[in-house]
Amino acid sequence: MAMNVAQKLIDAHLAQGRMHPGEPIALTIDQTLTQDATGTMVMLELEAMGLDRVKTEVSAQYVDHNLIQEDNKNPDDHRFLQSAAARLGVWFSRAGNGVSHPTHQQHFGKPGKTLLGSDSHTPAAGSMGMLAIGAGGIDVAMAMAGEPFHLKMPEIWGVKLTNALPDWVSAKDVILEMLRRHGVDGGTGRIIEYYGPGLASLSAMDRHVIANMGAELGATTSVFPADEAVRDFLESVGRRDDFSPLEADEGADYDVHETIDLANVVPLIARPSSPGNVVPVREVAGEELTQAYIGSSANPGYRDFAIAAEMVKGRQVSDWVSFDVNPTSRSILETLTRDGHVLSLLGAGARLHQAGCNGCIGMGQAPANDTNSLRTVPRNFPGRSGTREDRVFLCSPETATASALRGKITDPRDLDFDVPRVGNPSDPIVDTRNLMPPLPQSESSRVQLIKGPNIASLPEFEPIGDDLELTILLKMADDISTDEIMPAGNEVLPYRSNIPRIADFCFGPVDADYVGHAHDSGDHAVIAGRNYGQGSSREHAAIAPRYLGLRVVVAKGFARIHWQNLVNFGVLPLRFDSDADYDALEAGQTLRLSGLHQALEDGDTVTAETPQGAVTLRHDLTPRQVEVLLEGGLINWMKRHRDG
Amino acid sequence: MAMNVAQKLIDAHLAQGRMHPGEPIALTIDQTLTQDATGTMVMLELEAMGLDRVKTEVSAQYVDHNLIQEDNKNPDDHRFLQSAAARLGVWFSRAGNGVSHPTHQQHFGKPGKTLLGSDSHTPAAGSMGMLAIGAGGIDVAMAMAGEPFHLKMPEIWGVKLTNALPDWVSAKDVILEMLRRHGVDGGTGRIIEYYGPGLASLSAMDRHVIANMGAELGATTSVFPADEAVRDFLESVGRRDDFSPLEADEGADYDVHETIDLANVVPLIARPSSPGNVVPVREVAGEELTQAYIGSSANPGYRDFAIAAEMVKGRQVSDWVSFDVNPTSRSILETLTRDGHVLSLLGAGARLHQAGCNGCIGMGQAPANDTNSLRTVPRNFPGRSGTREDRVFLCSPETATASALRGKITDPRDLDFDVPRVGNPSDPIVDTRNLMPPLPQSESSRVQLIKGPNIASLPEFEPIGDDLELTILLKMADDISTDEIMPAGNEVLPYRSNIPRIADFCFGPVDADYVGHAHDSGDHAVIAGRNYGQGSSREHAAIAPRYLGLRVVVAKGFARIHWQNLVNFGVLPLRFDSDADYDALEAGQTLRLSGLHQALEDGDTVTAETPQGAVTLRHDLTPRQVEVLLEGGLINWMKRHRDG
Repeated sequence: MAMNVAQKLIDAHLAQGRMHPGEPIALTIDQTLTQDATGTMVMLELEAMGLDRVKTEVSAQYVDHNLIQEDNKNPDDHRFLQSAAARLGVWFSRAGNGVSHPTHQQHFGKPGKTLLGSDSHTPAAGSMGMLAIGAGGIDVAMAMAGEPFHLKMPEIWGVKLTNALPDWVSAKDVILEMLRRHGVDGGTGRIIEYYGPGLASLSAMDRHVIANMGAELGATTSVFPADEAVRDFLESVGRRDDFSPLEADEGADYDVHETIDLANVVPLIARPSSPGNVVPVREVAGEELTQAYIGSSANPGYRDFAIAAEMVKGRQVSDWVSFDVNPTSRSILETLTRDGHVLSLLGAGARLHQAGCNGCIGMGQAPANDTNSLRTVPRNFPGRSGTREDRVFLCSPETATASALRGKITDPRDLDFDVPRVGNPSDPIVDTRNLMPPLPQSESSRVQLIKGPNIASLPEFEPIGDDLELTILLKMADDISTDEIMPAGNEVLPYRSNIPRIADFCFGPVDADYVGHAHDSGDHAVIAGRNYGQGSSREHAAIAPRYLGLRVVVAKGFARIHWQNLVNFGVLPLRFDSDADYDALEAGQTLRLSGLHQALEDGDTVTAETPQGAVTLRHDLTPRQVEVLLEGGLINWMKRHRDG
Repeated sequence: MAMNVAQKLIDAHLAQGRMHPGEPIALTIDQTLTQDATGTMVMLELEAMGLDRVKTEVSAQYVDHNLIQEDNKNPDDHRFLQSAAARLGVWFSRAGNGVSHPTHQQHFGKPGKTLLGSDSHTPAAGSMGMLAIGAGGIDVAMAMAGEPFHLKMPEIWGVKLTNALPDWVSAKDVILEMLRRHGVDGGTGRIIEYYGPGLASLSAMDRHVIANMGAELGATTSVFPADEAVRDFLESVGRRDDFSPLEADEGADYDVHETIDLANVVPLIARPSSPGNVVPVREVAGEELTQAYIGSSANPGYRDFAIAAEMVKGRQVSDWVSFDVNPTSRSILETLTRDGHVLSLLGAGARLHQAGCNGCIGMGQAPANDTNSLRTVPRNFPGRSGTREDRVFLCSPETATASALRGKITDPRDLDFDVPRVGNPSDPIVDTRNLMPPLPQSESSRVQLIKGPNIASLPEFEPIGDDLELTILLKMADDISTDEIMPAGNEVLPYRSNIPRIADFCFGPVDADYVGHAHDSGDHAVIAGRNYGQGSSREHAAIAPRYLGLRVVVAKGFARIHWQNLVNFGVLPLRFDSDADYDALEAGQTLRLSGLHQALEDGDTVTAETPQGAVTLRHDLTPRQVEVLLEGGLINWMKRHRDG
C-alpha cells in the first residue's frame, strides 16, 4: 500500500492495533520531552514506580516555563528536576537554555522518530519528519519507562501547499490561514500532513511554526516530510548524519484533502480572545497598541527575530509601545548576538528578556489593562496573558514589528520600506555546552533526588477494594470542568509538586467544605452530570481527590482525558445507566458496591445498592484499564508489571 | 574658610541654616530622580498639590523596579508614570532602559549639583562630585515643586584613600571594607567624603559602587571630588561640557577621619543576612552555592560585567549554579553586546535578564531554599531575595564569578588564571534615543494622566490627637529594616499605588498577626531597638502602617529616611531616653501620652504613662517638623500652606 508520511511513521511504531481511523492503537515511543511545569509530577511518578533509568532513545527535561523566581519554589523545582534527570539518565536543559521545542529540534530532532511530550506544543517536531504528540504527565512517564502510548488512530488530513509566500508574509500566516478556515476544533481526531511544491520555500523552522500551532486546531499532531529543508537544517546544526529522508510514497492518499495556494496568503491576525478569530491584518489596522511581543515556540526561529531586527535597525519603536523580545533558545540568542541583531533590537527600544516561554504562558509581560497587545505566541485565550481585561492578538513577527514601529496595528505591506532579506544562517551557534547529557548508569544510580520543602513524594494509593461502602460527598451538575475540580491560578499552581498541599484546594469552586468532609469520611464517591471533567488535562484533578479518598465518580458522561486520568490514578469512573438514578441520588447518601472486581472483569455493568434500591452503572473500560484500576492505578500496575 | 567637597556643595545650595553638624538646614535641589516603585506615589502627591510643571533643572522618572508584569498593575503604572512625566515636564526613562542610578549618571550626572531621589541608593551620584541624597517620595515631590530639602547638617567624614587596589580586588571590596570596619549604622548622621592619592586609580563608575553602597552604612550620602576621572567619564559619554572641577580646598578638614590603604584591601564578602557581616572571602571559601548574580546599582559599570565575561570566556560555570546576569542599563548592555562580552557570558551558561533592578529588590531570581547565593547587590536583608530561608552573600563581580566557575565560594586570587585587564571603554554606546525628553509646556499641559484600575487616591489622615492611649502592638529588636516593615517583592510591590491594599502586608516578616491586631486596635504604637527603619527609603513603610492606625513609634534610634517619612505622614517618632525602658515595656501594654501638642512645641521630651510608670521619651523634631506632625503630615501641611 502506498503510504503517506504519517502512516509511515505510525506503521513503523505500531505496537498494537490497526491503522484504521478511530480504532485503538499503541505506538512505541523513541523520545520524550518534559518541561518544568509538568516535569516535576512526571519525575515524582517515575520515583513512585521505582524506575532506575529511562528506556527511551532520548528523554530530555527542559526548564523553560517557571523562570520567574519569586520565592524558593521554582528554583527548588529546577534543582529537583536536575537531580531527577541525573538519576534517570535524562538530558537536562537548564534554565536559560530556552524553550523545549526549538531546543529539542536543534539537538534531537530526527526524521522517522516518535516523540511524546508533556506539553501541548510538542507537535512542533513534526517539522522534522517526526511523529510528535502532546500528552498528560503520566503518559509521558509510562513512555519513559518503555511502555507504548495508547490513542485512537487519527484521520490523516493532507494539506497541499502550492507556489510560494509573497513578500511580508511568513509561516505564521499559513497556520493562521488554517485557523481562519477551520477554527479551533477543525483538527480534532486528525493528523495534518503538509505536502506539495510549496514546501520547497519553507525552511525547517518555518515548518516548526506551522506544526507547533497545529495544536490550536485541536489536531493530534502535524507532520512534514523529511526533505532537503530538513537535511539543510541538520547540516547547519552539525548533525547531518541524523538525516534520513522520509517522504510519502508515490500515489499515497489522505483521508481528508485541502489546498493552500501560498501566493494568495496575506498577513493575518487572530483577534482577541481565540486563535480561531482570524482576519486579515488590514481589517483591524490603525488600532493603537501598547505592546508588541516577539518570540515563543510559535515563532522561535533565528529568522523570526532577525527580520524584526532588520526592520527596526536604525529606527525607533513607538514611545508608547513596549517591544518585548523573548529569545527562544540560548543558541539562537547567541547567534543573533554574534550577527548584530540583538544590538539593532536594543537600539530601537526593545526589552530583551531571558530565553524561555515567558509571557506566552503568562509568566511576566502581562499587557496594560484593556489595551491591545500584538504577539507572535500561539494562544490568546482570555486572561492567559495575566491581565484579566486583556486584548491579545496573534500575528507574525513582521506584523508585530511593523505595528511596534507605527504604534498602530499595521499590515507590514503598508510600511514605507522594502522587506529585508533574512534567512536562517548556515553557521548558527549550536550551544551544546550548556545541555547536560545523561550520566553513565554507574554514576546516575548514586544520585540522590534533591527535594525542596515544597516537593512531596507522590502518596501511595492502595488497590480498590472488592466491597465498597462510600458516602456521596458531592452531587454536581453538567459540564463541571477540571478548573472546578482542581483550580489553577497563582494561589494554587506553586503547589504543583505537592499533592497533599494542593489537595486543600480540591473542588473549592464547587463546595468549600468538600476537603473537610473528605477528611472526615475517608473513602467516598461523588456524582455528576454530563461532560464531567471537561477543560484542561491536568492530572492533579484526578490525583488530588484520590489522595483525599475519592474512589468512585458516577456521572452521566465524562470528558475523555479526565476519564483516562481517573483510571490512571485508580478512581473508578462509572456511568448512570438511567438518568433517573442521578435525579434520585443525593449527597450524603451511601453507595454500596459488592463483588466489584469480578463485575468489572466479567462485563460492562456494576450494580450499586443505594437508599433508592439497586442502581445499574456502566464502566466502559478496556480489559487493560480494568487491570490498571484493580491495581490502584498505573503506578502500582507498572510496579507489578516491572517486578513480575 | 577652607572647605571640603561636601561643604562646598552644601554651601552653594544652603537655603536655610548654618553648616554646624546637627543643626537643621535646608538645601535647594537642582535635580530629582524617581523610580517606578516610589514614583507613582510621588506623581499622585504632585497631582494632589496641583503642580503643572516641575521647578527643577532636571527631573527624571525611571522605570526599573517593577518590570515583572504578572498582570496589568505594573504596565498600568508604567503608562501612568509616562503620562505624568509628559504632563509635568519630566524626563522619562522607559522600561528596559535600566536602573536609575547608572542611567542618571550617564545622562545627567554633573559636578556641583544637588540630586534628591526617592530611592535610597541615590547617593551613587556622589561619584560625580554631586550631593545626592535619598529621601521619601513626598520629600522628592516637594523638591520637584521647588521646595528646599530639610535635613540636619551632617558631620563630614573624611576617608583618605592611599595606594591602589591589588589584582582581583575592586571597588566593591572598598565599600565592604568600610562596612567591615563600621557596620550598618557607622555612617549615621554623616556624609562620607573620599579623598587622597588612592582616588587616582578609581574610575567614576568605581566610585559609583562605593557611593551607592554608602547607603548601607546609614550615611546621609557619600561624595567624591570632580577630578580627572569624572572628566574622563563625561568625555566618554559625550558630555565634556558638563564637566567642572570640584575639589577640596587646600587645608580643608573633616569632622571625622579615616584612612584606607587600598593596597591592603582583600576580597571581602558580607555573609547572610546583613551588609555589615563582612569577612574575607577566604574565611567562607569552599562552601557550595546555587546562584551567582551580577548586576544592580552596586556594581553597574561596564567593567563589572566585562571582567566577569573575560573570566568565563571559553569556560563554563558550574552545572549546579544559576549564573544570573542583570545588565544595569540599555547603554551598557548595548556596549557589552557590541564588544562581544554578552556572547562570552551566554556561552558560559549565563541567564541574561532584561536591564533593571530585578532580583536585587526581590523581583524574580529568588534563590533555592536554604542554599548560598552570591550577589553583587547592595543588600542581603533576610527574605529580601524572595526566599524566606535565603542565604545571600554580597561580594564583588570577581568573587561572584570565580565562585560560579568553581561551584564553591572562591577567592578570585585562588583561581588558576591571571586577572583579565578590563577597563571602561573610551567609546561606550550612549543610547539617548530611548530616553524621552520633557515636552514643551504648550504640549505638556494638554497631556491627560492615564490611570489604571489599581491606582488609588491617597487616604486622608487626620491630625494627631493631644491625648493618646495606644496599645503597643509590636516590640521589635535592633536593625529592623523597611523590608520588614513593608515588604517588597513581587507579591507586594504591585500594590504600591494602592495604600489600602498594600497595608495588608505591613510588618508581615515581623508578625503575621499585626494587620489583624491593628484592625482590632485602631490607633496604636510599636516599639523597637536601634536603627529602626534601615534600608530602602520606601515611604509606604510609613504610610501603610499609618493607614492601619500607627500613631507613635518609640525606638532606641531611627534610620534617617524612615524617621523623616514617619513625620511626613503624621506618625510621631520618639526615642527612649533610657534603654532600660525599652527592656521593661512589652507588647500588649498601653502607652498614655497627655498634653502632647504642648509638649512637642515646648521642648524635646514627652512623658508617657506606662504600666512601669512614667517613661521619658525624646522627639528630636525641628519646629517645622512639629508643625507638620501636628497637621497630620506634609500633605495636610501643604494644603494649608498653599491655601492659606
